[in-house]
Amino acid sequence: MYENGIDVYFINTSDYHVSEYVPEYFRTLYYFSNFSGSLGQLIITFDHAYLFVDGRYHTQAEKETAEQEIEVMKLGTEGVLPADEFLINNCRDLRIGLDGKCVSAAFVRKLQKKGLNIKSVDLYSSIYEDRTPLSKDMLYELGVKYTGLSRKEKIEIIKKCLGGRCHIVNNLESIAYLLNLRGNDVPYTPVFLAYLVIYQNDVYLFVDKERLSDVIFEGLLHDGVIVKDYNAFYPFLKTIRHELILLDEEKVNYDTYAAVGFKNKIHHMMSLIEDMKTIKNQVEIKNARLAHIYDGVAMVRFMKWLKTSDKEELSEYDVKIKVNRCRLEYKAFDLSFNTIVGYNENAAMMHYSPTPDKHAMLKNEGIILVDSGGQYFEGTTDITRTFALGKVNAEIKLYFTLVLKSMFNLAQAKFLKGLNGGQLDILARKDLWDRGIDYRCGTGHGVGHVLAVHEMPPNIRPAINSGSSYALKAGNIFSDEPGVYFEGKYGIRCENLLLCKNDVKNEYGQFLSFEHLTMVPFDLDLIDKQYLDEKTVACLNAYHQEVYTRLSPYLDDEERKFLKQATRSI
Amino acid sequence: MYENGIDVYFINTSDYHVSEYVPEYFRTLYYFSNFSGSLGQLIITFDHAYLFVDGRYHTQAEKETAEQEIEVMKLGTEGVLPADEFLINNCRDLRIGLDGKCVSAAFVRKLQKKGLNIKSVDLYSSIYEDRTPLSKDMLYELGVKYTGLSRKEKIEIIKKCLGGRCHIVNNLESIAYLLNLRGNDVPYTPVFLAYLVIYQNDVYLFVDKERLSDVIFEGLLHDGVIVKDYNAFYPFLKTIRHELILLDEEKVNYDTYAAVGFKNKIHHMMSLIEDMKTIKNQVEIKNARLAHIYDGVAMVRFMKWLKTSDKEELSEYDVKIKVNRCRLEYKAFDLSFNTIVGYNENAAMMHYSPTPDKHAMLKNEGIILVDSGGQYFEGTTDITRTFALGKVNAEIKLYFTLVLKSMFNLAQAKFLKGLNGGQLDILARKDLWDRGIDYRCGTGHGVGHVLAVHEMPPNIRPAINSGSSYALKAGNIFSDEPGVYFEGKYGIRCENLLLCKNDVKNEYGQFLSFEHLTMVPFDLDLIDKQYLDEKTVACLNAYHQEVYTRLSPYLDDEERKFLKQATRSI
Repeated sequence: MYENGIDVYFINTSDYHVSEYVPEYFRTLYYFSNFSGSLGQLIITFDHAYLFVDGRYHTQAEKETAEQEIEVMKLGTEGVLPADEFLINNCRDLRIGLDGKCVSAAFVRKLQKKGLNIKSVDLYSSIYEDRTPLSKDMLYELGVKYTGLSRKEKIEIIKKCLGGRCHIVNNLESIAYLLNLRGNDVPYTPVFLAYLVIYQNDVYLFVDKERLSDVIFEGLLHDGVIVKDYNAFYPFLKTIRHELILLDEEKVNYDTYAAVGFKNKIHHMMSLIEDMKTIKNQVEIKNARLAHIYDGVAMVRFMKWLKTSDKEELSEYDVKIKVNRCRLEYKAFDLSFNTIVGYNENAAMMHYSPTPDKHAMLKNEGIILVDSGGQYFEGTTDITRTFALGKVNAEIKLYFTLVLKSMFNLAQAKFLKGLNGGQLDILARKDLWDRGIDYRCGTGHGVGHVLAVHEMPPNIRPAINSGSSYALKAGNIFSDEPGVYFEGKYGIRCENLLLCKNDVKNEYGQFLSFEHLTMVPFDLDLIDKQYLDEKTVACLNAYHQEVYTRLSPYLDDEERKFLKQATRSI
Repeated sequence: MYENGIDVYFINTSDYHVSEYVPEYFRTLYYFSNFSGSLGQLIITFDHAYLFVDGRYHTQAEKETAEQEIEVMKLGTEGVLPADEFLINNCRDLRIGLDGKCVSAAFVRKLQKKGLNIKSVDLYSSIYEDRTPLSKDMLYELGVKYTGLSRKEKIEIIKKCLGGRCHIVNNLESIAYLLNLRGNDVPYTPVFLAYLVIYQNDVYLFVDKERLSDVIFEGLLHDGVIVKDYNAFYPFLKTIRHELILLDEEKVNYDTYAAVGFKNKIHHMMSLIEDMKTIKNQVEIKNARLAHIYDGVAMVRFMKWLKTSDKEELSEYDVKIKVNRCRLEYKAFDLSFNTIVGYNENAAMMHYSPTPDKHAMLKNEGIILVDSGGQYFEGTTDITRTFALGKVNAEIKLYFTLVLKSMFNLAQAKFLKGLNGGQLDILARKDLWDRGIDYRCGTGHGVGHVLAVHEMPPNIRPAINSGSSYALKAGNIFSDEPGVYFEGKYGIRCENLLLCKNDVKNEYGQFLSFEHLTMVPFDLDLIDKQYLDEKTVACLNAYHQEVYTRLSPYLDDEERKFLKQATRSI
């Protein structure tokens, strides 16, 4: 820092593509802080280090950084400002360094507008030992029977909206979606490292050429995509002049913006591809329903195993292995995220995940939370169920029932088009708020199609400034996952994926409503019916009936019998 | 226009203070177009005139301008742009004139940013004959027993936030609030024409000096307020240089902005006074509760008269006169807006109000909607009740019950601080949306204290871009007024005013909830209990019990008997 004239250095959990989940190569923050969560920011001064983490990671960050001299800044608690506000308030006259490829243009520009002195410099790579190399695995193509639209059709749609502008894309999901290609660079998300520049006439893809088969290479060329090397991107940017450039400053890194920002006119707006990608087409929707049947079959097998095993023999990690196997040995080609299995108090940590070395042993009592999902060629799944492992007390039943009701409150909503997720969120929270309880996270997130399990911008969350201005559209897929988290006691979450659909259209406008995609029973052993109104009981029974109808053709007799019992009317 | 080098002239319905309701003196648009509505914009070219009006006024504007050569531009119908967009699209190379005192700075600056050529010039005053003069009535003071804070205390609070800046205020409600003064310049809103400039050391009030008694004049001087003449404001602005000026471009007129904008640095932000004004202090809250008891007594007397009269003898206008008298002959010093009384299909027009010449006659059947309010020295009220005038059919009872439930759904909300009105709105709408019905207006608006019945920025409405980013705060007073409006059939609305209060504070944060301020029974003849859940029945019964307890000490035996019956448990 000193040699480079830097007083403060900023490290986050991102890669060169402002990704949420990143290749091992980019686990810089973990390397330097030992914090293994998926989101965090580290601010290092000459005599101090601050780690900023959200509600999911308050406890985990404390534990993991205990042996380092790092102060954990718990976002969401009183008086703790986000990292950018912290820099603005405390580092006004200091020289701030960061790797401009690993932070969004929006982040740096915000700081610069506040008068902060920012320098893009990589101070860590030279001291980052045993760094995992980038993937060299070959890419693969998703056919039209999975995507609904060919690469050429997708590119034509984008070009029609381009109006002579040049569109620069860093976002890996958008690139994979547009080109109908997938890779394995990032755990759980089948994307590959690449950049894209779309002109009205030409499309340039920047990717490690050796990872393309001849067939894919020729196919790209045939569809008008010129392939250049991954490392040729920044030199290429320097040649762009006097263009009207369309980019999303939240989704391109600062170095990308800086390379073109001064010689061209910039239109800041959400990528055209992102908008298209979040509205699933009819083929994708049909496939998604099938993926959720496959996922339901895997989950029912897992549930049968869990509910009928002697829990004294099992650890959380055994459960994690089992649920993963149920998916991977059936139809999934990958998991969609690192499976969360939390027994009793461990489930109060929202993103706790057991490892071979660190896990709790189970008993034939208490509750276990399992949040898991799969990648299928037909779609991406994400589901949470909480199970009783034996007798549970009345308090747990009360809260499970409230959480289940909260999930249905949102799932049953019918609302006018134009509403955003921030305006729907209260439906899932109000029964908990009535009792003075909250969950410190969003209610739901968008879900990609054979892509990231967290797909922005659709989301359902209450915060004013967190992108919740996205109006829900027919074709969006969302998670609906309210919960309660009592530190040191237990955690409960119920999560289904919902498809947003057109409902009635009349003189008041177009109404939208949801369809349950997830097809897995809720554990009836945890329900106390006195806390459910008639409407929710009817919804639950109808849902369970549908689960049985859809899954039973895929199950053997034993499994079917189990499912029949698990989906009985209450 | 020709002499002044103007190709297009713009006239609107505002005064010099960007007010919603204006003194007669400013009815320029009515004078030149014969359109009498409260909101409209006239654009005059050498050979054409366009009048822009919203949905409320489509029919009325056609009728009133029939004898003039004016094209009515019906906002909200397909292809009709708002006046500002019209100017941007059609008048790019023309010279546009307008009275810069009668339009907001934000309006003109938006046009200027689009490259339009705007000149502030008053072309109408010299040809405006028989213009109603401005009020000469004396102003009066509200004592601390009504305001909770002295003028001096309020000024000190503002000065503490000023940080050396100069704050320019055009908004009449803010000036009246800060100075604890009231006037009668505008119908229904007790404000007076004035401007204010607050420096760290001095406060300048620009007002017609002859309207101040010696006592008030001395009091102002004693509190550090220097009084200058109303007309001295613009010459004074020209003397301001090298200051950091705080102003709200939506709430100051363009001439104000133009006079200071180039010689000073401008901080655009909501007025500090507005923020303070919308958070009612403990004295204001105590008084507001009392004002609502007075209002409730007046409304119960009205309700008793209405429910026990032979309706065949009455017109809507008779009802309007009666409800107004019930208030004005008891404790109110004025009404808070023009009373709305709509019988059956007339109530489907949201802003319908009967006149001596135009009104429907009533029958002993059907329903009547009465939306009315009063100005009391203790507070400002606004209430809607819908009453059965005889037998009503099952459909009407269904919708009344749904609307009532919707009102309670919002009123019973408990929610975390930080939530804005747009995020609460769905609670009042969801039961109607479930049936594919909407009301095409907000759910609620802020209410001033002995000031305007519509107080911005607090509001509860679903639209994304309509100021709903204001987070609700303890001390805000809101209306809660869902409804159904079936054109040609009937309209139903239930409206109570709610006080936002601090509820429990715990590890999740500060919860807020509401208290009913309005204390008037809902007509039990319109309720079909099968559409209410147990919780809402309990809320309604508890509310009615409270209404009886609070109002009965103020009533005579007959009235008390009526109220007892009207507030019986269901």
